[in-house]
Amino acid sequence: MSHRENESILVIGGVACGPKAAARARRRDAGVRITVLEAGKTVSYAACGMPYYLAGVTDDVTSLQSTPAGAVRDETFFDKVKDIQVRTCTRAISIDRVAKTVLAIDLNSGEQKAFRYGKLVLATGAVPIVPAIEGTGLKRVLALRHLDDAEQIRRLIDDMAVDRATIIGGGRIALEVADAMMAQAVDCTIIEMADHLLPTSLDSEMAGLVECALRDKGIQVMPRTQAHRIEGDANGVARKVITEAGEVKTDLVLVAIGVRPNVELAERAGLELGETGAIAVNEYLQTSDPDIYAGGDCVECLHVVTGKPTFAPLGSTANRHGRVIGDNLTGGRTRFSGTAGTGILRTMGLNVAGTGLTESRAAALGYRAIGGTASGHDRSHFYPGGKTITVKIVADAGNGRVLGGQAVGRGDTCRAIDVLASALTFGASVSQVADLDLAYAPPYGGPISSVSHAANVVRNKMDGLANTMGVAEIRENLAQGKELLFLDVRGPIEVEKSPFTLGQVLAIPLGELRSRVGDVPRDKQVVCICPLGIRAYEASRMLVAAGLDDARFIEGGMVCWS
Amino acid sequence: MSHRENESILVIGGVACGPKAAARARRRDAGVRITVLEAGKTVSYAACGMPYYLAGVTDDVTSLQSTPAGAVRDETFFDKVKDIQVRTCTRAISIDRVAKTVLAIDLNSGEQKAFRYGKLVLATGAVPIVPAIEGTGLKRVLALRHLDDAEQIRRLIDDMAVDRATIIGGGRIALEVADAMMAQAVDCTIIEMADHLLPTSLDSEMAGLVECALRDKGIQVMPRTQAHRIEGDANGVARKVITEAGEVKTDLVLVAIGVRPNVELAERAGLELGETGAIAVNEYLQTSDPDIYAGGDCVECLHVVTGKPTFAPLGSTANRHGRVIGDNLTGGRTRFSGTAGTGILRTMGLNVAGTGLTESRAAALGYRAIGGTASGHDRSHFYPGGKTITVKIVADAGNGRVLGGQAVGRGDTCRAIDVLASALTFGASVSQVADLDLAYAPPYGGPISSVSHAANVVRNKMDGLANTMGVAEIRENLAQGKELLFLDVRGPIEVEKSPFTLGQVLAIPLGELRSRVGDVPRDKQVVCICPLGIRAYEASRMLVAAGLDDARFIEGGMVCWS
Repeated sequence: MSHRENESILVIGGVACGPKAAARARRRDAGVRITVLEAGKTVSYAACGMPYYLAGVTDDVTSLQSTPAGAVRDETFFDKVKDIQVRTCTRAISIDRVAKTVLAIDLNSGEQKAFRYGKLVLATGAVPIVPAIEGTGLKRVLALRHLDDAEQIRRLIDDMAVDRATIIGGGRIALEVADAMMAQAVDCTIIEMADHLLPTSLDSEMAGLVECALRDKGIQVMPRTQAHRIEGDANGVARKVITEAGEVKTDLVLVAIGVRPNVELAERAGLELGETGAIAVNEYLQTSDPDIYAGGDCVECLHVVTGKPTFAPLGSTANRHGRVIGDNLTGGRTRFSGTAGTGILRTMGLNVAGTGLTESRAAALGYRAIGGTASGHDRSHFYPGGKTITVKIVADAGNGRVLGGQAVGRGDTCRAIDVLASALTFGASVSQVADLDLAYAPPYGGPISSVSHAANVVRNKMDGLANTMGVAEIRENLAQGKELLFLDVRGPIEVEKSPFTLGQVLAIPLGELRSRVGDVPRDKQVVCICPLGIRAYEASRMLVAAGLDDARFIEGGMVCWS
Repeated sequence: MSHRENESILVIGGVACGPKAAARARRRDAGVRITVLEAGKTVSYAACGMPYYLAGVTDDVTSLQSTPAGAVRDETFFDKVKDIQVRTCTRAISIDRVAKTVLAIDLNSGEQKAFRYGKLVLATGAVPIVPAIEGTGLKRVLALRHLDDAEQIRRLIDDMAVDRATIIGGGRIALEVADAMMAQAVDCTIIEMADHLLPTSLDSEMAGLVECALRDKGIQVMPRTQAHRIEGDANGVARKVITEAGEVKTDLVLVAIGVRPNVELAERAGLELGETGAIAVNEYLQTSDPDIYAGGDCVECLHVVTGKPTFAPLGSTANRHGRVIGDNLTGGRTRFSGTAGTGILRTMGLNVAGTGLTESRAAALGYRAIGGTASGHDRSHFYPGGKTITVKIVADAGNGRVLGGQAVGRGDTCRAIDVLASALTFGASVSQVADLDLAYAPPYGGPISSVSHAANVVRNKMDGLANTMGVAEIRENLAQGKELLFLDVRGPIEVEKSPFTLGQVLAIPLGELRSRVGDVPRDKQVVCICPLGIRAYEASRMLVAAGLDDARFIEGGMVCWS
């Protein structure tokens, strides 16, 4: 295909947003010249797939760079299939916005070359944040950002060189890699500075479910812990992480405390950065130079809930950016609507998902935030194979608007989060969410979805009908020495099989409670308990009706008691 | 608990909406007397679970009537746990709206009794439509509406009395029962009058996927077929269904052509019926008598897309109704927002789901309807265990508003449908749906969700970028003798493994097409094909760029070719 003279698109960055923008532009315009520069050796790979390569879910690293049909997306593929010229091992070093050229260096030959552009796309991604501690330069202190990193770690595992791994950071990648380490029978420690794991996605009590699952599988979790330094052996190989809580012996250190946008090129070219430090773009994903677009992990975008700029680097967002940019490079006028920071990960058999704001984040931003948590199964109880999920909805107590959602469990949480991501994008209230007409049949859940249940908990709390005590509040009360009376309303067989032993417990099956309500002491703070919180809620209503006005029930049920 | 004098709630109907309304009312008001009348022997059972009892997924019919914790929801349960008086085998026969009483008959004793009410709830459900043909009175001509029906059918199966079953009707229950029959090794025939199965939920090409799966499993599907009569043997047992297409030998006939609202009581009491023939209610679910509420399968409600009354009897809707009525019976002012007719069912290993309007229904209602179909996997290709799903979105070509969604496949379709149900409830456009920030990680799909893919197909079609030919159109063209050239752009190994043999086929792998575009004849209607339609779309763009302006690709891919 011959291209039009004097019209060209140049893309810097070849992982997710860049190739997507280029491919979309090509489908819309056969005549424009399109070139992609990538500093690394590989392009268009599923970076999100690297933990699964570490885990041995796939043993073929090129599968991460393949189409579903098995074609490897290399330079030849882009040339033949997409009519896009890809140059790997080519690092862009400066942008001349007046001459409209990008100077780049061939990392193999050291040769420099200028590339002309009509429209430029910055898809320079993000770089791992390296903590400012001693020892990060040692061997086997790695981040998981490029396929090279994944291959290096996998080689160490395959060579049986790693018995113990330490992950600094407790976010998404950390938990996916911990899962991979478990799959590879590598002992694993997670060191997280914040109060709890996944601090940007989950509130503490939901993160507790994840932490509990990690500990159950023998993974050491150290929240509220600062790594002070990494120490190596005589060969300069990392062997110990020294923390305030003691030292952790290790054969590998993965640094996963987050990423920062790679804005060096943009900054030097005088493009505007936003308040988060990432490249500022308008709704068409144009930078302050209208001929330069930017997308993926190097830009900030508007949060659909707050309407404020946020830095939320995600592969799915990068792909959405790419399509919008591809449109706008070729005469389109497509808007990018923003991010909800929706994410999901699988670790220890749990599906861990979040969207929008957490309750603590919402409160910090000044919202009058209220949370509602409900547990249930992802199949009807008479349909075998159902698994538990716990859904939390965060809402604005003033107007009922949904601000965020979290879902954790062995069951299908992705569906719940996708519904909540949709709902908060469209500005829905908890009442609207509770009333959604979602799909029901016994193999897929109950007639009232988990999302509706959680929304109803929020509504009931707002209406004073549900007096709950969350597991965090229970823990706090117990820590402060406050006396709680747990009213266990399960049946005798359930109680016998798995007794609840914490503090003072009175066991009255729900079916007997109405006639035995006089047995419940009136001078104690009663917290009704049962596995899912459904019977406990019913019990709390009976007690309130009997004059125990402050009777509570455990929000989300005993399954939240991690 | 002693109740207040002169205040009482009476509920007629004890399956789904009725008990839910009663239980919700009780949780909000401990002092009101609540009575439920039910003509059948059992209350509060999961009617939607009956096909799974037939299938042997559960062998214990009481599990359908149990709480997840295993308590059977019988009269004693409602008394002890809910403080609700339930009278089974008690049929309401008339309502005196002036005296505010309901006359009911005890079906065991024959005794009549008047029940006073302050507020009345009609949850009288629906009754199976019996076709006006000869032989419906024969033995073993059954409908699946009550637990009794399920028990009778299950007994016949367990007694090995059923080798062949015939289902008249091809809707949800029909397909769930067909699945149960397959599980029980009973040969099965489905007779459906309409053009295709599931005519209210799916368009014909999507229903084709289901029909194909049924036939693959040996189930005989007879669309566009009228059952003329049922013939019995000397013992009056149904043995043959005579249709215009011949006779079907059988040991059991299940009538599943739909239900009609049970409005007898309401009608005789002079309550208003709606245009669908179901009881008319306002947004608070009040009938034309403000002291009488109605919900569940006996009422009509507003469709969230059309804003018009619709009769969409579903267990999930009945439960939502119950909660709203429970609120409003006890001083609340809760609105019911309407129905999207969202449904899902599992048959032959397929998850079959729909929400909102089908394309044909939308067109019939006067919308300028456009559909977009995309196929994909519910996991990333390098993550094992991924299964195919096909998603269709129906939109208004004028303003892009989403009108409906359909999803069929072995993979997780429930998530896609729940997102679409949410989107159309909130009036979203396809662009907004395409741009939703949904959860992504390799175990859950690709970075661009199937829903976004389908929305992008609609957008591309609207923008003239995707020239598709759907399987229905392909079939129609072939039937009319129109010459089509299928350009198979799969790789040589794929082609060899599963050649496409229909009509004229030219095989050029996608990677060679740009250089071999001259090999493609310019005087033929070209339809590019590949399994998911992704490469075929790319190929069609190459052909258009090369001047083959009318090159098409198979919409939804070869997986739609059933």
